[in-house]
Amino acid sequence: MKIDGRHYRTIFPAPDGEGICVIDQTRLPFAFETKVLRSEAEAAVAIRTMIVRGAPLIGATAAYGLALAMREDPSDRNLDGARRRLAATRPTAINLAWALDRVAALLQPLGPSEREAAAFAEAARIADEDVASCRAIGEHGAALIAAIARKKSGPVNVLTHCNAGWLATVDWGTALAPIYVAHDAGFPVHVWVDETRPRNQGAALTAFELNAHGVPHTVIADNAGGHLMQHGQVDLCIVGSDRTTSTGDVCNKIGTYLKALAARDCGVPFYAALPFSTIDWTLTDGVAGIPIEERDAREVTHLTGRTDDGAFATVAVVSPGSPVANPAFDVTPARLVTGIITERGVAEATPEGLLGLYPERRAAA
Amino acid sequence: MKIDGRHYRTIFPAPDGEGICVIDQTRLPFAFETKVLRSEAEAAVAIRTMIVRGAPLIGATAAYGLALAMREDPSDRNLDGARRRLAATRPTAINLAWALDRVAALLQPLGPSEREAAAFAEAARIADEDVASCRAIGEHGAALIAAIARKKSGPVNVLTHCNAGWLATVDWGTALAPIYVAHDAGFPVHVWVDETRPRNQGAALTAFELNAHGVPHTVIADNAGGHLMQHGQVDLCIVGSDRTTSTGDVCNKIGTYLKALAARDCGVPFYAALPFSTIDWTLTDGVAGIPIEERDAREVTHLTGRTDDGAFATVAVVSPGSPVANPAFDVTPARLVTGIITERGVAEATPEGLLGLYPERRAAA
Repeated sequence: MKIDGRHYRTIFPAPDGEGICVIDQTRLPFAFETKVLRSEAEAAVAIRTMIVRGAPLIGATAAYGLALAMREDPSDRNLDGARRRLAATRPTAINLAWALDRVAALLQPLGPSEREAAAFAEAARIADEDVASCRAIGEHGAALIAAIARKKSGPVNVLTHCNAGWLATVDWGTALAPIYVAHDAGFPVHVWVDETRPRNQGAALTAFELNAHGVPHTVIADNAGGHLMQHGQVDLCIVGSDRTTSTGDVCNKIGTYLKALAARDCGVPFYAALPFSTIDWTLTDGVAGIPIEERDAREVTHLTGRTDDGAFATVAVVSPGSPVANPAFDVTPARLVTGIITERGVAEATPEGLLGLYPERRAAA
Repeated sequence: MKIDGRHYRTIFPAPDGEGICVIDQTRLPFAFETKVLRSEAEAAVAIRTMIVRGAPLIGATAAYGLALAMREDPSDRNLDGARRRLAATRPTAINLAWALDRVAALLQPLGPSEREAAAFAEAARIADEDVASCRAIGEHGAALIAAIARKKSGPVNVLTHCNAGWLATVDWGTALAPIYVAHDAGFPVHVWVDETRPRNQGAALTAFELNAHGVPHTVIADNAGGHLMQHGQVDLCIVGSDRTTSTGDVCNKIGTYLKALAARDCGVPFYAALPFSTIDWTLTDGVAGIPIEERDAREVTHLTGRTDDGAFATVAVVSPGSPVANPAFDVTPARLVTGIITERGVAEATPEGLLGLYPERRAAA
């Protein structure tokens, strides 16, 4: 997508060949800065500290991290070690393990001298495939928006949670891709943007993206979505996912489950948009089986933002001395999910629905 | 309740007789300061800017505001005008209109020279009755907590939203009163405190109260409650209310509806605690009938807190240029409410349930 008229991906090889460029998402929305990752360790820090975030982008970054590790030391021992270290940076997003498994499987049979080039090429393929995949998600999801647009006057109101836009992927996004495709095709779309506490990826990133692309939107507190749905102000919900089970349970940013409940209660369709790499075919019960990352209390107790004089400041907002819990994801049971939008189409959130899109998995199952 | 060992109410006549003292709740949790309201206009500002907040305390403040107006000018014209001006400060809390109606009805037949003293005396009675009412809510609600405590080991985990503690009333609170009473009686209680964006009354006020009283608690983002309920970490929810219909629809801080949906989905009992003055006997459909206050976008876009060096700073956290909506309340339909805890007992959230506690309303209906 474009920033100030220039096309960007969220991750790309640095022009000097010395590393991998990423957009520093901790500086958005107030500063747009790229950062060069020059080592496996820097890639791991970028994932852990959420300089890059979003399940598909985490996968691509981990793949490039493994390539950087092969440049430093292409031995079997370092291949195993780097894969393990990178896998430990975030526990919930399945794309992370998927990308590492894919690159490692390619590298294992190769001699050490071949590994660096092969790893960089494979990471680039993962990035390119993610762009194509997100674009296809956009096409399939836009058809849902178009169908609603044809039946009502005024804009189609889409509620989304967190950021599953182009900043969460290599380009286009997952949940936001249908919105971009529909908007570009001339359908009137308005997006309710959950601010998404505690890290405010909605208020900071989704709002920034939509604003940059010119898509009408309104930022709301996470608490407001149920009220809007009760009053007919939401036509559909589209969220991303960090891991979706073979049965259609959708793990996504904490708070997603609450929106799915409100959507069900108010008769609003609720979709998750995700590429095949987000599906964990080994799991059938998301609530029991998906590890939920517990993050630092400081994400809840403190906020960083821009003061009126343009400086950045970090302020405490929780009563001093009060303990804090900070689970980062929750699981929306498949029974609350109207459909799953993938690069292959829209499926019911059931084993049969997903296998219908991925028949090659029937043999594996 | 006590602050640093000294007992406070949230509103009380100033020792010099010149006005009414309130706790400036916009300064909490980082500073505990009282403020003297010396005129009707200052009382109105205190309500509108949320120096005082919480439906019962808004009612008591409005009653004192009318008394201050009578000191300034006890004419019929000023009685009507002050009542109208004070009623317009906040649209949702029904206690505001209830308290103004009660004081005005007492003053109207009196001669101007009698009005000031009668108004101050009636405001004091409203405050005293609120304390007694909240204490009774605490006794009835504590029985629910005690019943759960007897059936499990470890603490009873109560989730609450916003602040319906003693700071929202004259003393004791509504939703927190059962917690204080149960805790004081030796039952182990742990409270999940929703931070309650956008104004963070949970993180700032509920956490402050519970900490000051020594009640174990954990602050969470508003998004986290559904996940905790899915995993059996919440035994019951208790919230306050700004207006409850005769049918049991509960209007409360925005986001309450989402927690009620999660409670229903996870089999967790969901109670609203409120005094009789919060019940709007004229309404049967809360979603259609209760006006929802839309507050300033800046409550969402900016946060004020304390920096590490002890200064206060206000920071922007939303992407610049993005529009914001800020509905302050939502309505939880009675079908999601396990029971209503009032000063007279616990009732089903139905017309029959509420009339059972308030049989004198049968004649009125």
